[in-house]
Amino acid sequence: MSTVLRLASTSPRRRELLEQVGIGYTLIRAEVDETPLPAEPPAAYVERLARAKAEAGLQAAGGEGLVLGADTTVVADGLILGKPRDRAEGLALLERLSGREHAVLSAVALATAGRTEARVQVSRVHFRATTAAEREAYWATGEPADKAGGYAVQGRAAVFIERLDGSYSGVMGLPLYETCELLRAFGVEVL
Amino acid sequence: MSTVLRLASTSPRRRELLEQVGIGYTLIRAEVDETPLPAEPPAAYVERLARAKAEAGLQAAGGEGLVLGADTTVVADGLILGKPRDRAEGLALLERLSGREHAVLSAVALATAGRTEARVQVSRVHFRATTAAEREAYWATGEPADKAGGYAVQGRAAVFIERLDGSYSGVMGLPLYETCELLRAFGVEVL
Repeated sequence: MSTVLRLASTSPRRRELLEQVGIGYTLIRAEVDETPLPAEPPAAYVERLARAKAEAGLQAAGGEGLVLGADTTVVADGLILGKPRDRAEGLALLERLSGREHAVLSAVALATAGRTEARVQVSRVHFRATTAAEREAYWATGEPADKAGGYAVQGRAAVFIERLDGSYSGVMGLPLYETCELLRAFGVEVL
Repeated sequence: MSTVLRLASTSPRRRELLEQVGIGYTLIRAEVDETPLPAEPPAAYVERLARAKAEAGLQAAGGEGLVLGADTTVVADGLILGKPRDRAEGLALLERLSGREHAVLSAVALATAGRTEARVQVSRVHFRATTAAEREAYWATGEPADKAGGYAVQGRAAVFIERLDGSYSGVMGLPLYETCELLRAFGVEVL
C-alpha cells in the first residue's frame, strides 16, 4: 500500500482492527462535536460523525492524503445509547438491553482532497436475559465504562450475547469488510 | 470459580477465547481420531468429536474434575471442509467459498465423572466473490494453512466476509455463549 492512511480516531479497538487485516496507518487528531441533531435518525447520525471525523482529520493533515473516520452507535427503542456517565447509567443501559435484540450502527468514512465517501453497516445483537447481580458483576469489571451502549462485544459481554447477525468488527467499532471495500473504491488495495 | 476447568485442546484461539471472558483453565492432552464416519452428518460429527475430546481429556486426568472439549467444522454443499493439506487444496477451498454463504458448526462439550453434555452452534458466513489473485495473495500470508475451511475469521479473511450471522467466537473455534451456558449447567458461574 503506497498511500499512507491516516486514522482519525483514538479508539484502541479501531487500531487493532486495522492491524488485523494488515492496513498500515498513522494517527491524526480530529475533534468533532458528537451531539445528535434534534430528531436525527441514528443512521444519519453515525454517518455524519464518521464523515465529520474524516474531514476534520483531513483538515488537520493540511488537506493532504487519505483520512479514515468512524463512528459506532448502539440503538434500542429508536434511542441512541451513548457511553454511560456513571454506575447508575451503566446498570440502566444493561437492563435495557437484557433479554432482547438491539441494533449496532457502525459507519466508516474516507476523505481525500475534494472527495468524502461513507458506508454504514447495521448489525443485530441479541442479549440473553440478565439478572441484576450479573449486571452489577459486569459493571464491576470496569469494562462497560467507556463503551457505547455500556458493553464490549470483544470482552466479557460475550457471555450475554446469544447471537450476532451482521459484522463483529462493526459492533467492535470499525466494520472491516466495508472499510476494505471503501479503500478499494479509493484505489487502495488491501491484502 | 472454585472448580478447575481443564481444556482438552491445543488451539491457541480457544485459549484466547476462554481468557476473553475470564475463565481460568489448565491444559490436558486428548488425542482422538478425527475421521468422519461414513455418511455422518456434519452436526453429529462435530458434537461427537467435542464429546470424545472432553471424555479423552477426563480419562487423561484420571477421571477427576471438569474437562472441556470442542470441535469446529466448515460446511459447504453438505461437505465437511477440513484443513488444507497443501497450496492447491487451500486455493480450491477458497474458490469453493467465493461469492456465497457457507455454514460453520462449532461444538463444545463438558465432561465430568458420569456426565457429558454438549452444545452445537451453527453460524452462516457470507464471503464476497474473490479473484484468483486475491486467493493467492491470501494463501501467501500463511494464515489459511492450519485452519478448518482454509481461512481465519479473526485474521485477514475479514476483508472477504460480507456478513456473519450467529457466533463470531463459534466461527473462531469456541462458541462463548454456549460454553458459558454449559458451564452454568455444571454449576460453574462465569463473571
